[in-house]
Amino acid sequence: MFFASDNGSGVAPEIMAAILRANEGYTRSYGADAIMDRVRTLIRQTFEAPDAAVYLVATGSAANALSIALYAQPWTAVFCHEDAHAALDECGGPEFYSGAKLVLVPGPHGKMTPENLIQALGKVGESGVHGVQRGMLSLTNVTEAGTVYTPAEIATLTSLAMAKDLPCHLDGARLANALVATGATPAEMTWKAGIDIVSLGGTKNGCMGVEAVVIFDPAKAWEFELRRKRGGHLFSKHRFLSAQMEAYLTGNLWLRLAGQSNAMGRRVADGLASIPGITFLHPADANILFLQWPAGTHARAEAKAAIYYRFPAPAGREAARLVASWCTTAQEVDDLLSALRQDSLLAFELSDVLHGDQRTAPNP
Amino acid sequence: MFFASDNGSGVAPEIMAAILRANEGYTRSYGADAIMDRVRTLIRQTFEAPDAAVYLVATGSAANALSIALYAQPWTAVFCHEDAHAALDECGGPEFYSGAKLVLVPGPHGKMTPENLIQALGKVGESGVHGVQRGMLSLTNVTEAGTVYTPAEIATLTSLAMAKDLPCHLDGARLANALVATGATPAEMTWKAGIDIVSLGGTKNGCMGVEAVVIFDPAKAWEFELRRKRGGHLFSKHRFLSAQMEAYLTGNLWLRLAGQSNAMGRRVADGLASIPGITFLHPADANILFLQWPAGTHARAEAKAAIYYRFPAPAGREAARLVASWCTTAQEVDDLLSALRQDSLLAFELSDVLHGDQRTAPNP
Amino acid sequence: MFFASDNGSGVAPEIMAAILRANEGYTRSYGADAIMDRVRTLIRQTFEAPDAAVYLVATGSAANALSIALYAQPWTAVFCHEDAHAALDECGGPEFYSGAKLVLVPGPHGKMTPENLIQALGKVGESGVHGVQRGMLSLTNVTEAGTVYTPAEIATLTSLAMAKDLPCHLDGARLANALVATGATPAEMTWKAGIDIVSLGGTKNGCMGVEAVVIFDPAKAWEFELRRKRGGHLFSKHRFLSAQMEAYLTGNLWLRLAGQSNAMGRRVADGLASIPGITFLHPADANILFLQWPAGTHARAEAKAAIYYRFPAPAGREAARLVASWCTTAQEVDDLLSALRQDSLLAFELSDVLHGDQRTAPNP
Amino acid sequence: MFFASDNGSGVAPEIMAAILRANEGYTRSYGADAIMDRVRTLIRQTFEAPDAAVYLVATGSAANALSIALYAQPWTAVFCHEDAHAALDECGGPEFYSGAKLVLVPGPHGKMTPENLIQALGKVGESGVHGVQRGMLSLTNVTEAGTVYTPAEIATLTSLAMAKDLPCHLDGARLANALVATGATPAEMTWKAGIDIVSLGGTKNGCMGVEAVVIFDPAKAWEFELRRKRGGHLFSKHRFLSAQMEAYLTGNLWLRLAGQSNAMGRRVADGLASIPGITFLHPADANILFLQWPAGTHARAEAKAAIYYRFPAPAGREAARLVASWCTTAQEVDDLLSALRQDSLLAFELSDVLHGDQRTAPNP
Repeated sequence: MFFASDNGSGVAPEIMAAILRANEGYTRSYGADAIMDRVRTLIRQTFEAPDAAVYLVATGSAANALSIALYAQPWTAVFCHEDAHAALDECGGPEFYSGAKLVLVPGPHGKMTPENLIQALGKVGESGVHGVQRGMLSLTNVTEAGTVYTPAEIATLTSLAMAKDLPCHLDGARLANALVATGATPAEMTWKAGIDIVSLGGTKNGCMGVEAVVIFDPAKAWEFELRRKRGGHLFSKHRFLSAQMEAYLTGNLWLRLAGQSNAMGRRVADGLASIPGITFLHPADANILFLQWPAGTHARAEAKAAIYYRFPAPAGREAARLVASWCTTAQEVDDLLSALRQDSLLAFELSDVLHGDQRTAPNP
Repeated sequence: MFFASDNGSGVAPEIMAAILRANEGYTRSYGADAIMDRVRTLIRQTFEAPDAAVYLVATGSAANALSIALYAQPWTAVFCHEDAHAALDECGGPEFYSGAKLVLVPGPHGKMTPENLIQALGKVGESGVHGVQRGMLSLTNVTEAGTVYTPAEIATLTSLAMAKDLPCHLDGARLANALVATGATPAEMTWKAGIDIVSLGGTKNGCMGVEAVVIFDPAKAWEFELRRKRGGHLFSKHRFLSAQMEAYLTGNLWLRLAGQSNAMGRRVADGLASIPGITFLHPADANILFLQWPAGTHARAEAKAAIYYRFPAPAGREAARLVASWCTTAQEVDDLLSALRQDSLLAFELSDVLHGDQRTAPNP
Repeated sequence: MFFASDNGSGVAPEIMAAILRANEGYTRSYGADAIMDRVRTLIRQTFEAPDAAVYLVATGSAANALSIALYAQPWTAVFCHEDAHAALDECGGPEFYSGAKLVLVPGPHGKMTPENLIQALGKVGESGVHGVQRGMLSLTNVTEAGTVYTPAEIATLTSLAMAKDLPCHLDGARLANALVATGATPAEMTWKAGIDIVSLGGTKNGCMGVEAVVIFDPAKAWEFELRRKRGGHLFSKHRFLSAQMEAYLTGNLWLRLAGQSNAMGRRVADGLASIPGITFLHPADANILFLQWPAGTHARAEAKAAIYYRFPAPAGREAARLVASWCTTAQEVDDLLSALRQDSLLAFELSDVLHGDQRTAPNP
Repeated sequence: MFFASDNGSGVAPEIMAAILRANEGYTRSYGADAIMDRVRTLIRQTFEAPDAAVYLVATGSAANALSIALYAQPWTAVFCHEDAHAALDECGGPEFYSGAKLVLVPGPHGKMTPENLIQALGKVGESGVHGVQRGMLSLTNVTEAGTVYTPAEIATLTSLAMAKDLPCHLDGARLANALVATGATPAEMTWKAGIDIVSLGGTKNGCMGVEAVVIFDPAKAWEFELRRKRGGHLFSKHRFLSAQMEAYLTGNLWLRLAGQSNAMGRRVADGLASIPGITFLHPADANILFLQWPAGTHARAEAKAAIYYRFPAPAGREAARLVASWCTTAQEVDDLLSALRQDSLLAFELSDVLHGDQRTAPNP
């Protein structure tokens, strides 16, 4: 039972088949392949954005860093959630590429609140030349806490940014999961909600290694190309990125794959919700769950070969992150639940309830 | 007939098979996959360097930029040939990653001469704090001109650098071709010749997109990891890089693939040598040929669907770069030669000989 | 009455005299002047640090940015107080020079608490290659809130950093004021308390524009010189920086000047303490006071030509920062107090007391 | 006799007097001083540029680096002479601030020829995304070789740049000397000749440490302010920069000072021209002379306490750079000539003439 990360899963069969198909004959390199022409059209259609500039890179960190560098001047602040991947998990890549400063906005469950964004916006750029200026907003959906912004929530935040003339980036490493969770269309979740540039993830959701950057205003397209090249992110045998992305979007494969991981996330959440002693640290909106459970569970889960991330927890408790993937099966979920249920039942102590851990109820 | 670049070819069957094999089950991500352990061992064995640190990235530009950044401080000069890929074809990536300045060393046929390197070394770092300091040497083999340094030639250049305490980088985007061309072992061409860090190319020679960085002194390994991550070049589904590199090196596949492209380059060169009016601009040491031929040849070659790069040439002449690939066939070469021979014979004009183009005889 | 900033004051007569004296004949440029030799000796003696490397620049932002860049690698975090000048008032200069990320540590009254530093240290560098690494600690004394760390407080914080092998920087833009406030020696406040590198301010305290960087371990001296030059901070007519610093330190002029500004700060604080309705937002340890007073005071103070910074305050209140300088006179203080006292008495409302503004008592 | 550099001279009396006058009372800091308002007006009048944005920094390296960073994107090439100060003597500062690549254009006597600029422009930006793009032109007047471009020569070069839509920078560290040498007005030498941004030097020509950056199109003024602050180049006690620049430009002091140094340079040149065995390496257009003379002269000049830079020379010869300053006197020149004449007469050997050193005749 592997629930460590959706990065640990492999490549979906449709996508691997596309890679194999792409491996025929000679093609033009560096993004001039014919498949990329089709990808550009597909993404424009998918996002209802006929003018969008579309580029592919191989990692989400590259997509984020290049997107942020495109819109944030070196003397500006990028407002992002304090737990954002760009802030915590890219080793300073966004700063390296942009020269800008990340200003961390807090908020429960991985989501920036409008109040907190207002406060952060109000603290930056008010001291003339002495401080950095307001630069851009970067949101993440699905968030690092596994929660999901609705389009309306995103629009509220981007409208605050736009009131200060700030462009808005969406880190959509798990955008498909967010779309499935909300039922929103790609357009509704992005440009219709005020987003200017999207990191559209493929890797975590069944691709081998491809992310698209979708820039709704193509004025900066050429600058993006230069930044991508300069960063070492322009692939010579680019057709193999194109092929992945084409297959990923064709026939809504991306949404089907995300549907499976979300459903399996839900299956885990539903199963766990009935087990006393388990606390949901964040609402389980998509395929990622953050939990606390009684001490001792880790050891027993490990004995059953369950693999997942562990975090520090208060005394007597243990914390875990469980991630379902496009290829997670109901059987794997049930095996996990079975292991945890048995243990939890045994380990459950009334004091957990009496002491009232602040429990976040899983989503319905 | 595709002779535009070895980047236009696809993935060798053995390597694609390895990618397919790697696509089984869950694995640890970000380079902690079991295949990478084997790759590390393979590369250490291949280079007779049991302590070497080994990392994978997906592009040659990333390998070069990260390698240079690892050894060149921002206030130093990187000495490279004026036609080096790092200098001309990476859009300033090495400077972006390192902050260093590239100092261009001239030399015929893409090769730095010891005299020119001595002169460049003597001009830098002699004005105290006012100028940048000497930083490192970066050589390329196979060169951008398609020529090949012997290990002895490399050792001569690195010894000049080492006399100034400079580390030495080898851009081996086509290292396999250089090894095949010279018969040298990987160790002879690199650390035994004074090289400290190698960009070991896979992409152009039958991989999908993978390059290894081999650091003979592992002291800087952790810094390399951080720089790679920060640059957005650490793959989450890293196993697919590992799988390529494992297959590439296993059973000397990389040398067999390069043997084919070199042989096809030789076949083109031999065929062209017998055609009057064709000038070799550089010795054809490996799989890349630079030629001049009579005006009008481009049009006729295009009519026969021959694809290659064109360059400006003197009046009455045309210039071309032809690159053979791991998958170039003898039939493709013969078709190309047939087209060019027929045309050349017709187009040849005595004046070409009388006016004495400076012809570089192809290598025997 | 000018209490806007110690930056608004001019040059102390002793220092101007030294500048005039330095303007004789020809000298070697770029720091090779004979005065600089004496400055080096003076600073080494003053800090009881015979091996220290000593350099001069003209601005505090340059001193901070270069100091931080010298010790923080681009992939690391610099821990500083959330109100640090380096964090808020240098427009991202430390990040520009170092490439590092500033991690903001909170704490009341401009001072980092050990608990908060422990927490910040614990949150960084614990996710392997994914996050930035712990880089260095940067403290400020006098703090931006006008408070002063004792040597023991500094030693407590640096010992936490040293436990993680982190070097420690002290932004001493107002170091003289901190020394006067605590009675500590320069050595006690710096290297004896675990500081590795100091920005030693002169400009705010009676110089025209000079700051020294004191590096206790000279191993990085040459790198500092290169960074300074590269940043455009190496003065050609360096003797005029040297002359300022020589006069500044000679005969403890720097401590006398800071003694005057601290005494005038104290005189303001003492005078204000007896006025009802005035709240001290921070302890007034040195020459900077942060206050709240009843609404309407600004207008009346302005009518009396009192100049100082204003900040947002709760309804019915106004906030001010008052800074005394090396040249502030008792008469200026008394004029200020007179204006404020008269107004305050009239404006004072009992409710201010009853509603219990969180008042910080001024230091005794 | 000090002829090492105009950096070795002190501050002109009028400028020191202005510094003293500025040292009265309190002023607003960070460039908001009243003197700066007058400087802005003065520079706009002096350059006949009523809309120009005007900023002060303290070093020429800062002026150049900030000017180049303002106009050159990180992925572009800055075309400058191969001996430009920005290329050789600022330790990579322009690259540090801009991220751009310097492309070195050769040309005799420190001057870029139109042909060489055309060639350089033609080699950059022609390979699509793979190479850096054309960014800007940076010229220097007086050049590092001591020669002077006429406005017409500058206009020829800038027109080549403008044909590629490139902005043009003038490093005018010795602009006053160039104006005196040519009789051109500031406007003729700059914006009327196609220059967009000027580093207007004060330091070498009698100031203590101040350079103005004059930006003819004010659209980028705010960005310049942010870059200056971020670089640590915004002075808190800015009035002392303003005072220097005001005095420098008032009553054409700057031209009188440069007139003196040019006249003394001419006096040296004229005196040397009559001495056999002395070769002028470059035309002596302003206050800098590059010479070769017979071996042994250095030792004898040193015995007479003549100070100047020495360079490598062919066997039997010695090379020297002599720089006259705003405060060089006729007596100092005559003492120098006397020493050299006596020695030269003795050392002169007929073979020097017979072997025909390529002598550049000094300007009339």
